[in-house]
Amino acid sequence: MTGAPAFDITSLHAFYSGGGTVHAIIDRVFARLAEVNDPGIFLHLAEREALLTQADALGPFDANAKPLWGIPFAVKDNIDVAGMPTTAACPDYSYMPTADATVVRLLKEAGALVIGKTNLDQFATGLVGVRSPYPIPRNAIDASLVPGGSSSGSAVATAQGIVSFALGTDTAGSGRIPAGLNNIVGLKPSVGALSTTGVIPACRTLDCVSIFALTVDDAWRVFNTTARYDAADAYSKDMTATGYGPLPPVLTIGVPAKPDRQFFGDASMEASYEDALGMLTALGHRVVEVPFGDFYKVANLLYEGAWVAERYAAVKAFFDSNEESFHPVTRKIYGGAKTLSAADAFNGFYALQALKRAVQPIIDSVDLFCVPTAPRHYSMAELAAEPIRENSRLGTYTNFVNLLDMCGIAVPTGKRGDGLPASVTLLAPSGRDGLTAALAREIHQTAGVGLGATSWALPPTPTITATASPDGMIDLVVVG
Amino acid sequence: MTGAPAFDITSLHAFYSGGGTVHAIIDRVFARLAEVNDPGIFLHLAEREALLTQADALGPFDANAKPLWGIPFAVKDNIDVAGMPTTAACPDYSYMPTADATVVRLLKEAGALVIGKTNLDQFATGLVGVRSPYPIPRNAIDASLVPGGSSSGSAVATAQGIVSFALGTDTAGSGRIPAGLNNIVGLKPSVGALSTTGVIPACRTLDCVSIFALTVDDAWRVFNTTARYDAADAYSKDMTATGYGPLPPVLTIGVPAKPDRQFFGDASMEASYEDALGMLTALGHRVVEVPFGDFYKVANLLYEGAWVAERYAAVKAFFDSNEESFHPVTRKIYGGAKTLSAADAFNGFYALQALKRAVQPIIDSVDLFCVPTAPRHYSMAELAAEPIRENSRLGTYTNFVNLLDMCGIAVPTGKRGDGLPASVTLLAPSGRDGLTAALAREIHQTAGVGLGATSWALPPTPTITATASPDGMIDLVVVG
Repeated sequence: MTGAPAFDITSLHAFYSGGGTVHAIIDRVFARLAEVNDPGIFLHLAEREALLTQADALGPFDANAKPLWGIPFAVKDNIDVAGMPTTAACPDYSYMPTADATVVRLLKEAGALVIGKTNLDQFATGLVGVRSPYPIPRNAIDASLVPGGSSSGSAVATAQGIVSFALGTDTAGSGRIPAGLNNIVGLKPSVGALSTTGVIPACRTLDCVSIFALTVDDAWRVFNTTARYDAADAYSKDMTATGYGPLPPVLTIGVPAKPDRQFFGDASMEASYEDALGMLTALGHRVVEVPFGDFYKVANLLYEGAWVAERYAAVKAFFDSNEESFHPVTRKIYGGAKTLSAADAFNGFYALQALKRAVQPIIDSVDLFCVPTAPRHYSMAELAAEPIRENSRLGTYTNFVNLLDMCGIAVPTGKRGDGLPASVTLLAPSGRDGLTAALAREIHQTAGVGLGATSWALPPTPTITATASPDGMIDLVVVG
Repeated sequence: MTGAPAFDITSLHAFYSGGGTVHAIIDRVFARLAEVNDPGIFLHLAEREALLTQADALGPFDANAKPLWGIPFAVKDNIDVAGMPTTAACPDYSYMPTADATVVRLLKEAGALVIGKTNLDQFATGLVGVRSPYPIPRNAIDASLVPGGSSSGSAVATAQGIVSFALGTDTAGSGRIPAGLNNIVGLKPSVGALSTTGVIPACRTLDCVSIFALTVDDAWRVFNTTARYDAADAYSKDMTATGYGPLPPVLTIGVPAKPDRQFFGDASMEASYEDALGMLTALGHRVVEVPFGDFYKVANLLYEGAWVAERYAAVKAFFDSNEESFHPVTRKIYGGAKTLSAADAFNGFYALQALKRAVQPIIDSVDLFCVPTAPRHYSMAELAAEPIRENSRLGTYTNFVNLLDMCGIAVPTGKRGDGLPASVTLLAPSGRDGLTAALAREIHQTAGVGLGATSWALPPTPTITATASPDGMIDLVVVG
């Protein structure tokens, strides 16, 4: 479509500012859907007419009043959108919510438009994106590859340029792995920063709503719009969104010591990670190797006992009477948790607490961490051969994060030698969302890689000046 | 024994300073044991000869080098003392520890002498003090009354003047209830302030080692000696012992709203509580009534599911193969927890988290709380008639405290009309141990009540001046 803008928010707002219409963008969304022609991405689509009506109700373009004015987005189908069925990729579980999840409401109030609900690993259990009874979303870069999950549809919709951003959820890495495998940004907020009211729990004590976007600035804008304390969510935290501004000139960045790195035979991923660390050093930061064995032990806890039981607890009544409604792999995982005792759960907490103490000095020794987002790419065939093992391996660098109450952001670092996307994830203790995002922005800018699977380039990146807005949030101010 | 000093630390140190010997005090301990003649207090006593040898090894009196020089104390029998069997009041569980629990080691290093191991509600489960296969310790004030538990022996030993102080543990109120029922001070530290290394867990996530003493200054001195971060205890916290100094002139003190108070028919306890609140007002503090319904809901969680399972988890292997070794009531409680699932445990955590949010504004609205320590006294006959219900009622004002991560101190407020002891407990969020202790000191001083069941009076209370010592702790400085 000649003259159509890129879908990053900066470009879309420039388009609107120059007289472009939301109708044109909605047309473009549907045109792009047809071009991509992937029936696995969306489980439900908004009616075109309804979208046009919503567009008209926005009033004249005003990005100050509505920072996401006219921005199309997608919502993972374990997050409620009023009037669209929520399925969690389990058709028998489906229900029709009458209210938006809190995050969706905030985004709508900011002017964003819900295009539809996206496919996922059923009940958000999995990192592969193929544990769904619906057609599987195709990896946006290479259809022979696993798309990554559990937020597969949201990541692919963003990477394909169908929407500007999408909501996912992240308990074990579901907001990072598919970002890494589809060449986009995946922001996993600190637990509690974004409300989970209206979200089907995976592990309630660990769950986050996450954000997929084409650029770090876009992800941060969505974060800034949605990070609000919610009294209705007992795990909500009042996290002032600070730190997304000029970076300290030298950050100390922890990375897994060489013998602790795991790529499961993907030499190209290993090389791309080395390149990314070289980039960080070239940017003036201090990269330090730290032991990672105890982080992996934490990661293993997530699928070994207590927290699998937490997934089961979330849907116990439904599972107990509808076991046959579950995807075979999901059923096996949840069924295994039925027999776990409360004593098992406590033993899991003790093991975690001991490991927390073991890794704390390592966490305290750095400003943040930089890890590979995924250890490797898997083909659909490789995954089919070892569905549980390869899923588990995908979580090598993600599974420990929520258990340790850290925030993270996955960011593209360029193309590997074989043309596949490379990505790192920056991790830091809860509350440092802004710091990790600011460094991710620097990395994305330096990598200069195209956006997702589109032909769009990263828009000119404005200099950030931090200014406190009246509501105490740090606003992003575009200079020059 | 003519000329024998009172056993509070101030009086004992004055005695030593004036040339009195530890041998004389050890003699007095054994003489007092014979006078009291209660076979239920101690499950194991130190050998007199061994104590005399330890006394000789202390060197010359030096309260600066050894702040507990020559001070006799008792240890609840779920806390290890090297060379003395640990039974947890379950003979078949008994083992002989080769190392002291960390708190015991710290006390010995400070010059204190272990007189023996004390009786308890088996595995510290109970608030009554009668769930033991050994003879039941007699309430030090009135032998027809329940002594309170689970740290029954430690409280009675202190109240009878056999020791200067004693260690207990507190998960649901075991460090406060028996203090209240025996007219002594019971300090329940913030969770994590005192190491639990070498302590048999009840609920590992909630357990505290607690301190029984004749005076608040003594309890604080023991706290100051033992509150040390312990890397071997995954739940240990580095809690600098601050705030035990001059009080702010006006504290805002939350108390249960009148309709929410529960005394289960004990009008004398109700009147004594009113008197205590009058005392606080007379001292210039602001007493404000707050709703207490949600605190009681938290309290109920402790015996309803998840946390009973945590008790079971602590002794699972032993219980599963030795059920008959348990006290009948304890067996019933633990047996009920065997069937609880991991999902039940998580549902308990969610219920707690929601209640935490509900009470947080109340907690934030005051400096600390003042509640009755126990809602009433029970006779042994009343308890025998309703062993579970009355145990549960005893915990009305204690069960919610550790679940809400608060610290507390029980302090005598005088004699009730019928001569029985009255007591309030001051509660505050974790870390305010010093604030609650400083107010407890003011209350104890104002009440002017005798110490425990002895004829000893509260020693002259020095003015406190807060000074930071080289290790960053606030020391108590005696002025005049």
